[in-house]
Amino acid sequence: MADHLFLRACRREPVERTPIWMMRQAGRYLPSYREVRARASFLDLCRTPELACEVTLQPIDQLGFDAAILFSDILITLPPMGLEVAFPESGPKIATPIRTHAAIEKLHVPDPEAELPYVMASIRLIKQALADRVPLIGFAGAPLTMLTYAVEGGGSKDYAHTKRMLYGAPESAHALLDKLARTCAVYLEAQIAAGADAVQLFDSWGGIVSPGDFREYPLRYAKRVIELLRASPAYAARKVPIIYFVNGCAPYLDDYASSGADVLGVDWRVGIDEVRRRVGDGVALQGNLDPGALFAPPSEIRTRVADILARAGTRGHIFNLGHGVLPETDPEHVRAMVTAVRELSSTPAS
Amino acid sequence: MADHLFLRACRREPVERTPIWMMRQAGRYLPSYREVRARASFLDLCRTPELACEVTLQPIDQLGFDAAILFSDILITLPPMGLEVAFPESGPKIATPIRTHAAIEKLHVPDPEAELPYVMASIRLIKQALADRVPLIGFAGAPLTMLTYAVEGGGSKDYAHTKRMLYGAPESAHALLDKLARTCAVYLEAQIAAGADAVQLFDSWGGIVSPGDFREYPLRYAKRVIELLRASPAYAARKVPIIYFVNGCAPYLDDYASSGADVLGVDWRVGIDEVRRRVGDGVALQGNLDPGALFAPPSEIRTRVADILARAGTRGHIFNLGHGVLPETDPEHVRAMVTAVRELSSTPAS
Repeated sequence: MADHLFLRACRREPVERTPIWMMRQAGRYLPSYREVRARASFLDLCRTPELACEVTLQPIDQLGFDAAILFSDILITLPPMGLEVAFPESGPKIATPIRTHAAIEKLHVPDPEAELPYVMASIRLIKQALADRVPLIGFAGAPLTMLTYAVEGGGSKDYAHTKRMLYGAPESAHALLDKLARTCAVYLEAQIAAGADAVQLFDSWGGIVSPGDFREYPLRYAKRVIELLRASPAYAARKVPIIYFVNGCAPYLDDYASSGADVLGVDWRVGIDEVRRRVGDGVALQGNLDPGALFAPPSEIRTRVADILARAGTRGHIFNLGHGVLPETDPEHVRAMVTAVRELSSTPAS
Repeated sequence: MADHLFLRACRREPVERTPIWMMRQAGRYLPSYREVRARASFLDLCRTPELACEVTLQPIDQLGFDAAILFSDILITLPPMGLEVAFPESGPKIATPIRTHAAIEKLHVPDPEAELPYVMASIRLIKQALADRVPLIGFAGAPLTMLTYAVEGGGSKDYAHTKRMLYGAPESAHALLDKLARTCAVYLEAQIAAGADAVQLFDSWGGIVSPGDFREYPLRYAKRVIELLRASPAYAARKVPIIYFVNGCAPYLDDYASSGADVLGVDWRVGIDEVRRRVGDGVALQGNLDPGALFAPPSEIRTRVADILARAGTRGHIFNLGHGVLPETDPEHVRAMVTAVRELSSTPAS
């Protein structure tokens, strides 16, 4: 497994072609996923290892991605912390968002094996079902992103509650981020112990702040997670690649590489060649096709894939979308992307 | 009026201190604005020159900004184009969004004096009421931003309909953008003829695309607006500064200056010093405090103002927020920002 294409690319070792996976690859764009969802709620899927395993494997079996990613949700850690979350179709909702220091003090750093047992069971089951065909990526929400959900109570347009806490009550923000960072670290540690071959920290809303505040909040706590993780016995035993993804990373490129991750995720709003110039050669890069570009005809998708492959180069690149695939995407257009990456990145036999 | 601080800064001429205004300065954070809104709907405000004039002047009288901006909404041009818009508290809604080429062909480029007479009447009334105290900024939504509203039917999380059109039906996208650009140009031209001393093109959602698509869509059509505008008799007579604002401009800095605008707006997610390095000295810059930073205590606001002033330098800088002020903002914190800009940017008497 350590020799798998995806893991070698994460370590910037030579590869015979560029590996590809896709954020939200197990999701609503796939008819087979929608069939499973017709008989079970989103939370049931996350909490039933057989169902999580079934949908995790669908894109591997049907589209041939080079890595599987655990079917789950970043907010799954909030209930055991003490914050109930509902998942209606309109997006996640927290009925009693965190707005006071007292509420932060009541939150609890969970024991993942005891309090999120279905996640660990899912990982073990998926690993068995994959039978070493491709590596399995575990994941968690990065601290700042988790804070936005906990504080806003769901998605947000302007993150006013988040910013009121960050700038108006920074001691509360740091206390909350500290708990979220410790939760994130033990959760990823447990996923590695259960069998995850790589882990990704999703900072989906890490890009809502100024460059100075990026260092003070999202980056600082992502770094802390990565340090805690690297110091853990589970990591020491397996040394799996750590991926850090900030959606909207362009303003922070001078600092991005200092996260300590092995791989940096790159969204679609920046040239991956510019990211490489600014972050240097010490990390692998993952990205960065606009999920919306999959609405283009297959010939145009192929042109855009070729452009990204040329900008990224052959060393230390994992092809991915710049954010999660859109539910309205035609799976045949996804297939066109996968085929283009496989064909266009292959080293000709010499 | 041509010698006013704000206009000199737009032209990169020497100034005795940095001018300041604030996007959405006439808005819900002001108790006096909420009083007017209690007796009139949002659309009534936009369509009644006396009310539009009253709220436009409130932040000038109460907080001492160096420029007024017409109270209106970028979507106000859609109904005369043939697209009805409602403005409930939850945000604008278009009941029949544009999804077909036939729908685009039915849209009409309005005659602003005939079809948006209340806007022109508002400008004339505001100019009279201001009595040359400060310049008046007119504005319009940039073509790509207007397309997102027309196509999505309101705000959006992922702009899936927009991207389906841009990448799946580019000929439709170009046809729609062309009509929106011509509308935008004649509308700004009429505002200048009515008395606006500067105009701003808001590309609030210009930042949702890759750098290549930025050149192909938002930038290309903003350029077209600016070219059409500069070729107009109204512009030739007064040569007012043209401001182009892309929210989320960081990924596009190598191209941003080629818009042809005199002033570039800078959101808060990028250092204004980096923007200056990348766009060169040919344009003025406007920005870039995080609207959320106004939740910080006044002493911290002052520190952040000082940081931006130091990064921006004294030549060709207009202080502003990086996006519209948040409705939850304390007006006294806005006052702290204005005071800090006035005090910290003043050239000591020599």
